[in-house]
Amino acid sequence: MASEFDFIDWIRSRVPASEAVCIPPGDDLAGLRWNSGELLLCGTDQVLDGVHFDANLHAPLQIGRKAMNRNLSDCAAMACLPAAGLATLTLPRGRSIEYAKELFRGIEQAARDFDCPIVGGDTAVWDGKLAICVSILGRSAGLEPVRRSGAQEGDRVYVSGALGGSWLGRHMAFEPRVKLARTLRETGLITAMIDISDGLSRDLGHICRESGVGAVVFAEKIPIHEDAVRAAQDGTPALFHALHDGEDYELLFTAPATAEISSAVAIGRITRESGLWLQHPDGRREPLKPLAWEHRFQPSSHRLRRPIDAK
Amino acid sequence: MASEFDFIDWIRSRVPASEAVCIPPGDDLAGLRWNSGELLLCGTDQVLDGVHFDANLHAPLQIGRKAMNRNLSDCAAMACLPAAGLATLTLPRGRSIEYAKELFRGIEQAARDFDCPIVGGDTAVWDGKLAICVSILGRSAGLEPVRRSGAQEGDRVYVSGALGGSWLGRHMAFEPRVKLARTLRETGLITAMIDISDGLSRDLGHICRESGVGAVVFAEKIPIHEDAVRAAQDGTPALFHALHDGEDYELLFTAPATAEISSAVAIGRITRESGLWLQHPDGRREPLKPLAWEHRFQPSSHRLRRPIDAK
Repeated sequence: MASEFDFIDWIRSRVPASEAVCIPPGDDLAGLRWNSGELLLCGTDQVLDGVHFDANLHAPLQIGRKAMNRNLSDCAAMACLPAAGLATLTLPRGRSIEYAKELFRGIEQAARDFDCPIVGGDTAVWDGKLAICVSILGRSAGLEPVRRSGAQEGDRVYVSGALGGSWLGRHMAFEPRVKLARTLRETGLITAMIDISDGLSRDLGHICRESGVGAVVFAEKIPIHEDAVRAAQDGTPALFHALHDGEDYELLFTAPATAEISSAVAIGRITRESGLWLQHPDGRREPLKPLAWEHRFQPSSHRLRRPIDAK
Repeated sequence: MASEFDFIDWIRSRVPASEAVCIPPGDDLAGLRWNSGELLLCGTDQVLDGVHFDANLHAPLQIGRKAMNRNLSDCAAMACLPAAGLATLTLPRGRSIEYAKELFRGIEQAARDFDCPIVGGDTAVWDGKLAICVSILGRSAGLEPVRRSGAQEGDRVYVSGALGGSWLGRHMAFEPRVKLARTLRETGLITAMIDISDGLSRDLGHICRESGVGAVVFAEKIPIHEDAVRAAQDGTPALFHALHDGEDYELLFTAPATAEISSAVAIGRITRESGLWLQHPDGRREPLKPLAWEHRFQPSSHRLRRPIDAK
């Protein structure tokens, strides 16, 4: 009979002790050695059935990958290197141990791409829906983390890839931009950075707010993903999807106008005055309001979008 | 209208930047400075409605405290000092922001007792039940962590307090034995340690298995909590409750027979042969089987006990 402890055994057999992981999974806590002078970055994020994935549509391997990749994308946003992950699985009663292993394999696969061991976790079964919570530890590894608060008047605003319509399926299978973030950070030119999870309009708002500035975005410069074009069949313009859909997991960052950055697309400019503006090719400006994903507490106004897989 | 971002603002206003927390909550990840040579301990644990608490019975402050205290108890089990916590709240749609704040205040209150800042988190609303996931970072702070694997033949087995019947209410309001664990560790005498969450029988099994030894427990030595006596009204002996109920969050540890330890009760002895035995006052021995809390994957055999509050 498969039990929680069999599953824990299975997990711990996958992470042996090493130079970095001196106490592997199996004790009450795992133990890591930490290089002196290295900054420790940490955060946590969850994926929930019916919110971030649909357990009836998505395979457990995909779900596990997404849970991990969202955290790895947070490492990218700070330009740090993933160092270790922790994962809790909250399983609906009746799911098999094979299903749980597939979830874990997904977490592990995504993490392995970045040499990031999963050093701890917890598994529980309940009369509820599937949830995964991943916590990530990152290390500065010789580069000062990039914060949201460094954008300055006159900086250009860049995005690392095409946006919009991610909910058609891309949100389950994106690639965290860890390497690009490190490369960008090494130039010393990046002033602020975030990954686009809540949507360009909202995430640019986060940068502006933290930096005490505003921004203007040029409508014709925004790289529109073909998924946004497909999504526009719902009657909403593709540009709207690119601006607001979220879950793109591309990097959104700022750098001085004098910087030459070829690995991303310049889409706007930081202004001294607060406020976000969308400028059209004819020069007309309209306020760019954050319309993306937000978890509201009151049911009446709740507008969670259920991820829809195109298949 | 209260939103996720208002809540995040509220949280971040509570953890200012400091010497240790150089990047406070508000960026994609928080940043901590880490003393050179300090081992980093980490783990994660969740509490779920209907499994670890009952949202209809327990106040959100209590629920938050329990979520944090379980992780602090893991720090105690390793004899490390809590350094920082990360918390995700998974909220049923329709819960107010005040409810979420009370959960967070509970987490924070428990952590504050150990100078442990909550440096990151995530909040989401779903069509599901309440869950909290906490991840903990601990630091060795000059003492080698105590593992489960160091118990040796002839060692005495100790427990730090009375056991059993915790599900009558104590499981919501226990005190993590962090300070006692540090004091014990400082003696240099402790060979293995764990906190009793799964139950004495199962947690002693963990120590024995990791250490490649067995143990005999003396029935008359086991400190029986008055809650176990109350619980015995269900017809099961109080001793059975003390052995198997779990969620006591007392320390279970081993030390050489020559050690003088006055802060805990000696209840048994480590044997060379594997296997766990319960010895009665008349000398009769019976196998001590782990009968405690376990999350099974198959619904037919699932025996999760719903915590019952006596009030």
